[in-house]
Amino acid sequence: MPVHDRDPILLTPGPLTTSLATRCAMLRDHGSWDAGFNAITARVRAALLAVVNGAGSHVCVPMQGSGTFAVEAVLGTLVPPAGHLLVLVNGAYGTRMARAARLMGLAVSVLECAEDRAVDVAALAARLAAEPQITHVGAIHCETSTGILNPLDEIAAVVERAGRALFVDAMSSFGALPIDARRIRFDALVAASGKCVEGPPGMGFAIVRGDVLAASEGRSRSLSLDLHDQWQYMERTGQWRFTPPTHVVAALDAALDQYAAQGGQAARLARYRANCDALLVAMAALGLTPLLDAAIQAPIIVTFHAPRDPAYTFARLYEAVRARGFILYPGKLTRIETFRVGCIGAIGEAEIVQAVHAVGDALAQMGVQDRRPAQT
Amino acid sequence: MPVHDRDPILLTPGPLTTSLATRCAMLRDHGSWDAGFNAITARVRAALLAVVNGAGSHVCVPMQGSGTFAVEAVLGTLVPPAGHLLVLVNGAYGTRMARAARLMGLAVSVLECAEDRAVDVAALAARLAAEPQITHVGAIHCETSTGILNPLDEIAAVVERAGRALFVDAMSSFGALPIDARRIRFDALVAASGKCVEGPPGMGFAIVRGDVLAASEGRSRSLSLDLHDQWQYMERTGQWRFTPPTHVVAALDAALDQYAAQGGQAARLARYRANCDALLVAMAALGLTPLLDAAIQAPIIVTFHAPRDPAYTFARLYEAVRARGFILYPGKLTRIETFRVGCIGAIGEAEIVQAVHAVGDALAQMGVQDRRPAQT
Repeated sequence: MPVHDRDPILLTPGPLTTSLATRCAMLRDHGSWDAGFNAITARVRAALLAVVNGAGSHVCVPMQGSGTFAVEAVLGTLVPPAGHLLVLVNGAYGTRMARAARLMGLAVSVLECAEDRAVDVAALAARLAAEPQITHVGAIHCETSTGILNPLDEIAAVVERAGRALFVDAMSSFGALPIDARRIRFDALVAASGKCVEGPPGMGFAIVRGDVLAASEGRSRSLSLDLHDQWQYMERTGQWRFTPPTHVVAALDAALDQYAAQGGQAARLARYRANCDALLVAMAALGLTPLLDAAIQAPIIVTFHAPRDPAYTFARLYEAVRARGFILYPGKLTRIETFRVGCIGAIGEAEIVQAVHAVGDALAQMGVQDRRPAQT
Repeated sequence: MPVHDRDPILLTPGPLTTSLATRCAMLRDHGSWDAGFNAITARVRAALLAVVNGAGSHVCVPMQGSGTFAVEAVLGTLVPPAGHLLVLVNGAYGTRMARAARLMGLAVSVLECAEDRAVDVAALAARLAAEPQITHVGAIHCETSTGILNPLDEIAAVVERAGRALFVDAMSSFGALPIDARRIRFDALVAASGKCVEGPPGMGFAIVRGDVLAASEGRSRSLSLDLHDQWQYMERTGQWRFTPPTHVVAALDAALDQYAAQGGQAARLARYRANCDALLVAMAALGLTPLLDAAIQAPIIVTFHAPRDPAYTFARLYEAVRARGFILYPGKLTRIETFRVGCIGAIGEAEIVQAVHAVGDALAQMGVQDRRPAQT
């Protein structure tokens, strides 16, 4: 242990740095059957639904586990046996959605795009026109493996015009990037507690069109991940079917209070965008190059090329920056060496600037002089 | 809000009252990729395995979600396509295990016993002899719906002699009642963070025979609940496959530290037994009758008959006891009206005695005079 034990700042895309008020909400134990906890669950569901203006058309169903559990719950509960899912893949999370769907026996196709490009909407339209068997489209809003912002509004418009249903993995965009259920049509949208709403990890949730969910009874072959059963039980009793992560839910409730008090989605986006801009400017001054064009860079997480200097390894950079109080995130690309820096969490420009100073000091200590991209 | 906002004592079988030291561990954010968090995960896995002396023969695989998620992960990962599961049912959790197995398409039979009797071991032996197609047996150690302690050692012996594999749902017994993997044979045993090890809820785990788990690759049709994949990834990287509930895991680590420091399983059992004895004596003095014979009563949760006085309703009792600082648990029997009081969590005889005083005061306030069982 170091002499001081100040917590490091997490520059990771969830778990991320939460506020002290959010963490303090976990100092209380709640009975999962108690009216007080039921009220927390109800508040959280309503607040999450309100983020996307879903009241009236959609319902919010929380799911224990991580966001991936909620994605799988959506796939297993909402796609009928005769369904066929097309997944738009330009990174690891699209690949994961397709894998989950295949494993459970769904018919799955993939529209593969380059990892450093946004999903090709024209190719999607052509694919839907050519393959009438496709019933559902799965899209990743912000592909965290690179930080790409996929064009959700255009994707939703194409899917709606083609008369198909849309699932959105909005894991790392929900709460920060604008998503309006009154403007774009989706059957289900999935995110998690520990991302841009800045709660602790431990709970996923799905925002599902009410009539679609109502028609899905008895379809899930998983008891735990049956979104319809979870929803019906919650509506009937106010409680979760199986033991909820009470402390996590209470902390998410506190985080959503702060979210509203700070100005909601617009304010959160403004803070993250300022973080992202500060990050890009300061890293450029260190000679480091982002992977993506600015036009498709979401202000959520930024991928940087590894510097080509042979003195560089990610493990050494990570440790040297960690020793200075900041936690970076490894790259997730297969062919290009990169690392990632998150812009999200209960942090502002001050923390971002401190972090980049730490990166600069670490690179200097490591003797990394040639900082041009290792591969391009 | 009342003028004071002291937390109520949870007399519920998880979530339960945790220690302040355990909750304080949630005041830190951890990066899920960080070596510090990997060390926490490794410590938790080793400590849980040590509770049942499983080192060498078994491995511990944590699973996000609740205990039910881990039960489903065991069923979906370990039972081969040609398998046939016999579930020993004397309450809601046995029924739930059978339901999860059926939903995923497994061949399932049930050995049904009365809700107020322990599982009939002779009937189990006869059933296994008569039905050679049965490959796996699923048993609930402590059936929380009543508080029955099922005879795990005898069940395991019968299953082993018959050459079948055993799954144990030890959700509400793990850490308190003795289970020794060197003495009884099981393929998998499941429990959760928020029960007798006194962590917060949000994580289940399975203790699985290593060779059985190694042979299960590619069997799960659920990505999230694939125990083999979760295990392999964790062994390879030290990390969780999908976002872990970092705060819950850190708190469980703190709870397991306290568990060891307090004397481990023997000490925990002694405390819970003292709680249970104090509860039974004090409730008897109020004229309330437990459902079960003492011989099959686990010192985990006690079911009491509802008093027959017409002034009694559980909702009124719950509220009146809640107002005095204690949270009771509803009954879970279909034919008999009951309520339950947990003996577990970071509480001792003092809290139990206070709670029974509160029950007595509440019943007096409600005018409940005839406290004989409503039905017998």
